[in-house]
Order: sequence, then structure tokens, then C-alpha cells
Amino acid sequence: MERADIAIIGTGPAGVSAAITATIRNKKVLLLGSRQLSEKMAKAHEIQNYPGFPAVRGEDLVHAFQKHLDQMGIEVTEKRVAVVYAMGDYFALQAGEDMLEARSVILAGGVVQGKPLPGEEEMLGRGVSYCATCDAPLYRGKEVAVVGYSPREEAEASFLSEVCAKVLYFPMYPGETDLPDRVTVLREKVTGVSRDGGRGIVETESGKHPVDGIFVLREAVAPGQLVPGLKTEGAHVSVNRKMEASIPGVFACGDIAGTPYQYVKAAGEGNVAALSAVAWLDQKK
Amino acid sequence: MERADIAIIGTGPAGVSAAITATIRNKKVLLLGSRQLSEKMAKAHEIQNYPGFPAVRGEDLVHAFQKHLDQMGIEVTEKRVAVVYAMGDYFALQAGEDMLEARSVILAGGVVQGKPLPGEEEMLGRGVSYCATCDAPLYRGKEVAVVGYSPREEAEASFLSEVCAKVLYFPMYPGETDLPDRVTVLREKVTGVSRDGGRGIVETESGKHPVDGIFVLREAVAPGQLVPGLKTEGAHVSVNRKMEASIPGVFACGDIAGTPYQYVKAAGEGNVAALSAVAWLDQKK
Repeated sequence: MERADIAIIGTGPAGVSAAITATIRNKKVLLLGSRQLSEKMAKAHEIQNYPGFPAVRGEDLVHAFQKHLDQMGIEVTEKRVAVVYAMGDYFALQAGEDMLEARSVILAGGVVQGKPLPGEEEMLGRGVSYCATCDAPLYRGKEVAVVGYSPREEAEASFLSEVCAKVLYFPMYPGETDLPDRVTVLREKVTGVSRDGGRGIVETESGKHPVDGIFVLREAVAPGQLVPGLKTEGAHVSVNRKMEASIPGVFACGDIAGTPYQYVKAAGEGNVAALSAVAWLDQKK
Repeated sequence: MERADIAIIGTGPAGVSAAITATIRNKKVLLLGSRQLSEKMAKAHEIQNYPGFPAVRGEDLVHAFQKHLDQMGIEVTEKRVAVVYAMGDYFALQAGEDMLEARSVILAGGVVQGKPLPGEEEMLGRGVSYCATCDAPLYRGKEVAVVGYSPREEAEASFLSEVCAKVLYFPMYPGETDLPDRVTVLREKVTGVSRDGGRGIVETESGKHPVDGIFVLREAVAPGQLVPGLKTEGAHVSVNRKMEASIPGVFACGDIAGTPYQYVKAAGEGNVAALSAVAWLDQKK
């Protein structure tokens, strides 16, 4: 794959805005996320303060964004980036089994909503994984559990069921699931994760479920895990007013760059991040 | 006039966005500017990177903003604020002959485009004025010149002609002027201002025009002149990422808060400034 000028991770208003402005500035953009753009936004009943769209349904604003991208010929690459590695003069982005390359990176993936599960942070990399595609091979023929925070994670569980002997799926959202029969759906409230005798345990209000590996899948990955070595403040990437992060060539915008969590604030920051990335690339020439 | 919770100076995308969000948060907003909102934006042939409005004419985006304000019942008060005074627990805004009051202020008036005229800064307050309504009484029965940077200034020149013995009008823009006969329109390129023998001189490529007072009227006033004592960086108000300026209770957003000069960046910052003003007001209670 050709190296992009700017990889943009996230397709909410921040990522979309960054992609639009970077494209206008003739940069080769790799926009990574979902063609549905932002699930959070699509589910918003009504957005009142995105100027120009009075009292708009989230779904309709998402459609307007999609139309904007379409008219500019900007495509979304449907991949989930697990880790970004700073390689010196470029960045390598691990997305499932693919390794993508870009000269600069804009982080626009939103924030991890809510607290981690009790025990989750302690077990990260030791029985808890955030990336099914990355870590599935470790659990070939074994038993795993998936704690899924949105319907989008069902595809990950389905994929795991092709590799693993048994997949338990814990949906952390209401509504129906759409999963193959070989995935066991358990509607039990997950209260924590732990280890016992070399196995991982998913603890629920109804009991304990021992497995070999636990996948906790949310829409966003904590920024310190996404970009090792990046300076963060709690759940946020530390940035200045140019949206520059602590690693040269890395920028952040939208919820991941701090509060308030607002659509138009995110779009505005995406614009600034894109222009800062363009300036950074141009001065490197 | 009742004291507003938040006075918002400027009706471009930053001011409009701030007014929308502050109103949603149930604050009493005083939005000061023009019902036409932003002349600069209205004149933009095409705006490509305001997400959700692909390739939109500036005029159409202005209409969308007007519709948004209308639907929320937000009115624009058509006044030009000349100076903002910090009075301790509130702010006094001098707008022509009126003195308005607000508990907090959001500066969203854009930047002074271009350089001052040669001699302008030296003569400010000593023969050069930025506010016709404020200083007209000083020139009753005398001769004045108006250097107008937009058609909107014609109303100021017209008003001056009711008070002064003679008004010379120098339009700094192309196109027709719409002025009463008692205003003398001179289409000469102004090259500077100076003083000679107690009178002010408007210097043009064609000659020198001695008058008693010179009004230089642009859409925006430099922030240091607008809010005495405010920390600035060049043409911009110094702000942090919460859009807080150096005087508690004063916030800034949009072009006046720094580059890049972009519509969606301004709208995003307006949102943040409004929420910061709301938080500031709430913690004062």
C-alpha cells in the first residue's frame, strides 16, 4: 500500500472535517473508520447546536457528512487501528493483519466512554485484548469471551468463532444481536474480569465464566495504548492550540483531544489539525 | 436595559455558534453585530470545508445560520461595540451612545484585516477615531473625512453628515455607494493620514485633504483597543484551549482568537467559549 501523507483515525465530525480540509490542500489522505461514520452521532435523537443545521437528527447530519465526503471523492477505509508506531520518518499503523503507512497521523477516534471494567487494566496483554483481529491467532482452538460495547463488535465475535473453539458474547447494549449459532450470547451484566489458575474469568451478576482469553471491544481505544509514548491527560491526548500532540507529526482532534464533547467543536478542531499536519508536512520537504 | 448573562460581540460563525450553545444552556444572551451576520462569509464564492455543506455558497451558509438563529428565537442587536470596560462584577459595553451591561463577554468580532494606514496608530484619539456614533459630537459643525472599508460604513458617514458641516467619504471597496448628496464621495486611493497645523490630513494618490477629524471604519476593532488591558498577541486575543482570555469573564473565539481563519474552526471555538462562559457564570453563583 502506498504511503499516505496523512492517516486520519476516526470518522466522527473531527475525522471527517480533517479529511475534507486535508484533501482540499491536496494531501493524500487515508481516512480510517466506518462508512457509517459515527455511531454515537447517528444515534443522537436531535442535535441543536451544530450551526447551520437547526434541530437536526443525528442520522441526518451523518448523511450530510457522507454526502460531503462523496462529493469530494473521499473514501473511508474500514479498518480499526490497534496501534500506531512512530518509525522515525513515518508512522506504521497496525490494523488487524495489515500494516499501513503514513507520513503523519491525526487521532480523531473519540474517547473511551465510561470506566474500564474492574480488573481490565491489570489484565491488559495478560488475558485481556482490545483487538480481535490482532490476537485471534493466540486463541486458535481455545475458548474466548467477547465483551462488546456496540453492535459493530458482533463482526469481531463472528470472526473469532471461525478461529476459536468457543466464543461467549456479552452484549453491553440493548436490542437484538445478529450472530452465527456458534457464538453463545449471554445477556448477563458484566461486573469485572479476573484471573484464576491461568484462565481468565468474566464475572457477571449471575456467575463466573472461565475462558482462555477475554476481548473487551469498544469503539475507541485509550490514546496511550493506541500510540505508545504519547503524552496524555487522563483519557485525552495532550495537545496545544494547533492540535499538535507530543510526538512530532501526530495531531489529535475531537473528543480524544479533550472536553467539551461537542460535534462542532470536534469539526473545528479537525480543520485545525488538518492544517497543522499540512504545514508540518510542507516544512519537512 | 437588563443585564445580560453573556454579551457576544460579533455575528460571524464564532458568535452565532456561541449564541446558539449559550441559549441552549438557558443563559440570557446579548448577540451584538449585524442581522446580515458576516459580510465576509456572505461574499465567499464557495466554501468547501464546512462539514455537512459541500461546496456551499457563502450566502447560503449565512442563510442557514440565520434560519438556525430564527428557529431558536435568538435576536441580533444591531450595534457596534467600541469599548468593553471591566467593572469588577460585570462588564459595560459602549455601543454608540448606549451603554450595555453583561456579566460576561465573548469576543467574536473577527480580526482587523490588513495593516493600519501609515500614521493611523499615531493619530488614534488625536484626530483619528474608529467610532462615528461615539465621536460625532466632537465634530459638530466641523469638517470630517470617513475612510470606509465596507458599504456598511456608509450609514455612519450619512449620520455624520447630519451633524458635521462637511463629510468626505473615501470608499476603500469597489462598486457603487449609496449616500446622501451632502456627503462628498472621493474615489481616491488613501495612502496615509497625518497632521498639519492642528488639522488632520487624508493623504491620497491625488493629493491632500485637510479636515478636522478622520474616521477610519473597518468591520473589526483591534482587540487591545476594544478591551483595554486585555492580553493580546499581535492582532489576536491571547486565549487558552477553553477560550478564556486574560481578564476573568472574558472569552474569545474565531479569527480574533488566532489562525487559521476558517469558518468551522470559528464555529467550534464559539461552542467552547460559550460553554466556558456558562461554567464561569455558574461557579460565580
